[in-house]
Amino acid sequence: MDTTSSDRIHTSFNAQSMMATLGAEIDHIEEGLVRITAPILEGAKQQQGFGHAGLTFSIGDSAAGYAALTVMPLDMEVVTAEIKINLIAPARGQRLIATGRIIKPGKRLCVVTSEVHADQDGQQTLIAILQGTMVPVPR
Amino acid sequence: MDTTSSDRIHTSFNAQSMMATLGAEIDHIEEGLVRITAPILEGAKQQQGFGHAGLTFSIGDSAAGYAALTVMPLDMEVVTAEIKINLIAPARGQRLIATGRIIKPGKRLCVVTSEVHADQDGQQTLIAILQGTMVPVPR
Amino acid sequence: MDTTSSDRIHTSFNAQSMMATLGAEIDHIEEGLVRITAPILEGAKQQQGFGHAGLTFSIGDSAAGYAALTVMPLDMEVVTAEIKINLIAPARGQRLIATGRIIKPGKRLCVVTSEVHADQDGQQTLIAILQGTMVPVPR
Amino acid sequence: MDTTSSDRIHTSFNAQSMMATLGAEIDHIEEGLVRITAPILEGAKQQQGFGHAGLTFSIGDSAAGYAALTVMPLDMEVVTAEIKINLIAPARGQRLIATGRIIKPGKRLCVVTSEVHADQDGQQTLIAILQGTMVPVPR
Repeated sequence: MDTTSSDRIHTSFNAQSMMATLGAEIDHIEEGLVRITAPILEGAKQQQGFGHAGLTFSIGDSAAGYAALTVMPLDMEVVTAEIKINLIAPARGQRLIATGRIIKPGKRLCVVTSEVHADQDGQQTLIAILQGTMVPVPR
Repeated sequence: MDTTSSDRIHTSFNAQSMMATLGAEIDHIEEGLVRITAPILEGAKQQQGFGHAGLTFSIGDSAAGYAALTVMPLDMEVVTAEIKINLIAPARGQRLIATGRIIKPGKRLCVVTSEVHADQDGQQTLIAILQGTMVPVPR
Repeated sequence: MDTTSSDRIHTSFNAQSMMATLGAEIDHIEEGLVRITAPILEGAKQQQGFGHAGLTFSIGDSAAGYAALTVMPLDMEVVTAEIKINLIAPARGQRLIATGRIIKPGKRLCVVTSEVHADQDGQQTLIAILQGTMVPVPR
Repeated sequence: MDTTSSDRIHTSFNAQSMMATLGAEIDHIEEGLVRITAPILEGAKQQQGFGHAGLTFSIGDSAAGYAALTVMPLDMEVVTAEIKINLIAPARGQRLIATGRIIKPGKRLCVVTSEVHADQDGQQTLIAILQGTMVPVPR
């Protein structure tokens, strides 16, 4: 990863107001892999008091999208064409960690996956897996 | 829909702090169908200034889940086991409208779909479709 | 639907040896909708004696793909980028009927759905729904 | 894996006539992982002469299902509730190899994934990934 490519991801991420609302941050960027973390804020919960599926989805999807972006030409963005999430366990704990990976890069379509873990007092539990398709678009 | 069943959905919805963060509201409840609306708030946008996929997902998933809940016994809740979203068009406009429907009710699994439209100056555009599985759990 | 477009679909369908193996036939073609039927052959069953999910998938996916093809230029084919199936009931009866529909046409991606019914002694039961993405490619 | 559990999988597999039609065989069984192979038969092709998506799906889904079955009590079967496939590359070569894995076992739901490779002259290419949910049912 050269700095330019990493910069582009930070710039795009910072332009997503939803990420700020959720308190999400980019934790790690390498070619084909991006990690995003977010606290489980008081305002991001579901009816049982766990983290909301919309929070899990938001950072899981973003991590996968930015993983795809690491291999795109610098004048491109990516958008999610489709993504599927299997919710495996309640989002219990203080924060979530989403790790997105490229499975198959491509000029027209990029197949990606993402895993989301919940961190409760330092112990991490897999709470969701995602599988989807990112599409490169001109910036 | 008797009042008790409708009340239960409002109670559950109000307990989801994420819905308040997103400004979402229940618009309509009938047996097997629930409609949720949300404004595209300044804090719920993606990098191009459109509504964030996490917003679209959050209300699409919730509408589908509450549609499933309309046919559940009163002592049950539902959780999303899995759901898939195809994003069809940018979330452009002032607000989103998610309509969740039961396709196949069941004691163990409930198959649901959801459509999300964006409302721009009164004109509605289909921006996403979802297909998923809800699981009844004791409250 | 002009004859040329309909011919193209029949030509493509007949070139799929899997469709012959499964005994599948095109039942109906109109713009944006294709229906395919298949008997539940002795050689297409799962371990409980019902139609195999692979049969349900094969004709559900093909019906959706050909629905997409009805709106493509004549020099294009479509391939499935991804598709998700929810299996709702056992494939019980004499034959299956898959109805594919376009939800959103597009030059790069075409979002489709499909429903599969089982016909048992003239009574039809919904056994599966599919949601996916077709991609146009040059023939 | 004790022999009894492995036997059960072979018995169930042999009862699926679709697997015989496709020429599929169980290649490997261990706790949480099952591998199934199938030749690309003349009768299992799509319109461009590659292996049919229905073949890829059938063995990918079966491998995932039997992976789930490796951890179930002996009086249980599994059925696919839902599964999603991303098709990554054409099924080019002599045979396909599907490797199913458990991501999260459970009494009510079991989350699984599967990878399908095509073997062309000894070189293996990833052609599809699947992510789904298996449900235990009494035999």
